[in-house]
Amino acid sequence: MATKTLPILTAAALFVAAPALSQPTTSIKDSDMTVSPALENANRDEILGRLWRNEALSARDRGLATVAVLVARNQTDSLAEYTARALDSGVKPSEISEVLYHLAYYAGWQNAMEAAPRVAEVFEARGVDAAPMPPADPSDLLPLDEEAEAQRQKTVQDTYGSISQGVVDDTTRLLFQDLWLRPALAPRDRSLVTVAALVAAGQTEQIGFHLNRAMDNGLTRPEASELLHHLAFYAGWPNVFSAMPVAGEVFQKRQD
Amino acid sequence: MATKTLPILTAAALFVAAPALSQPTTSIKDSDMTVSPALENANRDEILGRLWRNEALSARDRGLATVAVLVARNQTDSLAEYTARALDSGVKPSEISEVLYHLAYYAGWQNAMEAAPRVAEVFEARGVDAAPMPPADPSDLLPLDEEAEAQRQKTVQDTYGSISQGVVDDTTRLLFQDLWLRPALAPRDRSLVTVAALVAAGQTEQIGFHLNRAMDNGLTRPEASELLHHLAFYAGWPNVFSAMPVAGEVFQKRQD
Amino acid sequence: MATKTLPILTAAALFVAAPALSQPTTSIKDSDMTVSPALENANRDEILGRLWRNEALSARDRGLATVAVLVARNQTDSLAEYTARALDSGVKPSEISEVLYHLAYYAGWQNAMEAAPRVAEVFEARGVDAAPMPPADPSDLLPLDEEAEAQRQKTVQDTYGSISQGVVDDTTRLLFQDLWLRPALAPRDRSLVTVAALVAAGQTEQIGFHLNRAMDNGLTRPEASELLHHLAFYAGWPNVFSAMPVAGEVFQKRQD
Repeated sequence: MATKTLPILTAAALFVAAPALSQPTTSIKDSDMTVSPALENANRDEILGRLWRNEALSARDRGLATVAVLVARNQTDSLAEYTARALDSGVKPSEISEVLYHLAYYAGWQNAMEAAPRVAEVFEARGVDAAPMPPADPSDLLPLDEEAEAQRQKTVQDTYGSISQGVVDDTTRLLFQDLWLRPALAPRDRSLVTVAALVAAGQTEQIGFHLNRAMDNGLTRPEASELLHHLAFYAGWPNVFSAMPVAGEVFQKRQD
Repeated sequence: MATKTLPILTAAALFVAAPALSQPTTSIKDSDMTVSPALENANRDEILGRLWRNEALSARDRGLATVAVLVARNQTDSLAEYTARALDSGVKPSEISEVLYHLAYYAGWQNAMEAAPRVAEVFEARGVDAAPMPPADPSDLLPLDEEAEAQRQKTVQDTYGSISQGVVDDTTRLLFQDLWLRPALAPRDRSLVTVAALVAAGQTEQIGFHLNRAMDNGLTRPEASELLHHLAFYAGWPNVFSAMPVAGEVFQKRQD
Repeated sequence: MATKTLPILTAAALFVAAPALSQPTTSIKDSDMTVSPALENANRDEILGRLWRNEALSARDRGLATVAVLVARNQTDSLAEYTARALDSGVKPSEISEVLYHLAYYAGWQNAMEAAPRVAEVFEARGVDAAPMPPADPSDLLPLDEEAEAQRQKTVQDTYGSISQGVVDDTTRLLFQDLWLRPALAPRDRSLVTVAALVAAGQTEQIGFHLNRAMDNGLTRPEASELLHHLAFYAGWPNVFSAMPVAGEVFQKRQD
């Protein structure tokens, strides 16, 4: 989380043009001190060399998921590297912009606010113009499934209305009748980053609903399985082992 | 978490006098790159414009709760902005000092230790003298409810004494016979920041006890409901949806 | 998480030679602003003065556990201080190196990646040569208990194989047939840092397995009890109160 912690162990850091990184990696990089050769090697061979090339999940999806993990865990020092990698893997700048806005709601407002300047650095280093960023109020929203939404509203109102009407009202107004309908990120991708953020934050209880929704939105079962594999590294083994029984239930129910 | 991440999207940053912020916001601010117009707009209109002005919870309480969230989540880059906002909303510097000490126990020691220098920056920028900070050992503690404390001790001893006597002893000595009796923060406010920190960290299991205690200490049910609404933004929707059933149980039991 | 947050309240910071810390503590330290005298005093008297000297758990174990907490919580600003303290308490540089690699899997890849440069700073300040760092591929691994491993594999395959074969395969190949057998960190210490990381991240579900394994690997029950006491401070009281029932079950089962 600090001044000099631009990732020192990965070739991917070189994707980012130097001038935009105002904080030179000074003495550490200069000194070539490798604290853990095992970590450095595994990062190169297992993570970037093997995991990212495993086609069971596209590199684009891995880019989206990894950025989501880093935002959810507030690991802003790693964001520049993986924003660059996401862009190189086919994620559009406008989609990364929209991931930040989405995760403001699903990972915490300041997670998105603290991530934005780091993403801006990468965009600027690459000469990404601000112009194509998704507008605050797009003229066209995706169509709303009125019936499903009416059912969702009723369930949430009945369950939570007496506990916090403010939460219930903004869940409808800001999330389901606006955020999820914004065209800048496909519903499948929105679900993908939501699931990644939930696993990364250990929020097991909320994974079932969103993984099921992700699969409704087009995430295939092999992709979901490989997403868990990807997240084992970036969210840690324990978070994924807590998520797996929930995923198993979702897979089972959809099969029945 | 980095050098240049003073919040770039919010007017509130201007509350903090420039000289104390030794790290200028350089290229990002200069370049006026807005990664997410939607995030910037919603931060201005929904968060600062609407949520903070919603009188169902006072701006002072929102200031306390938000500082607690940021300390609990170690989001130190956002602390300057929201410490300033808390002060502008009527939270006393001595109360913010005490929130840090309180959260050392309830959110983790180094969370408080890492937050302290960021709060110091704001205090210094505003010329807040160190003099009125709460002393380490106040001469007068709040009165202890001996009977309730004896009951609490017995329960905790019986349940956890055989597991870790060290935890049990320090829970009594440092928390319930000292921290909670320190006069620098009203018990209601101590409970408020505890609940906010628990929701922010997804520690659902501990919310029931502390939300009930908060209401014993004077937090009203409408305030508790609106606190959940406030936390939906700063702790993220999923954490609040995990907290709501617990809050519902507390509300129900107090009604019966 | 920021530029100037080298710990300002603790004498321990002095362990680290000044030249390697390129980020001076400038105005805050100069100004001697103490935001919370209570926090400063308790850090000196309760934490460093009493807790660390409590011989129910060795200072070496406390060093390992605290570094694990800070890596798991991404509290990189505190890492320099506690890496130095761990070294002064008898933890070898090669062991700290191996803790980072271990926690890449158990706390999240980028947690280790972001921690590495901060640990490098301390090593360099002390003239720790890179030479004795554990190699990526040690020529000798610890012996594998083939029978127990076959049982573990079968259980994990049967339970999780249909959910994510990728996770199952890498759990075997990277974790149980490699990581846990690396000689640079004793299995007992590997388990100790795993448990500390799990408690610190609130991952209650995974604590039972690893605490039991820690005790199989030589962690005594009094040490486990005092580890919980230590973690109450660094991981926060609520995380430890969520961990205690799980620890109680483990203790009970091993007694039966």
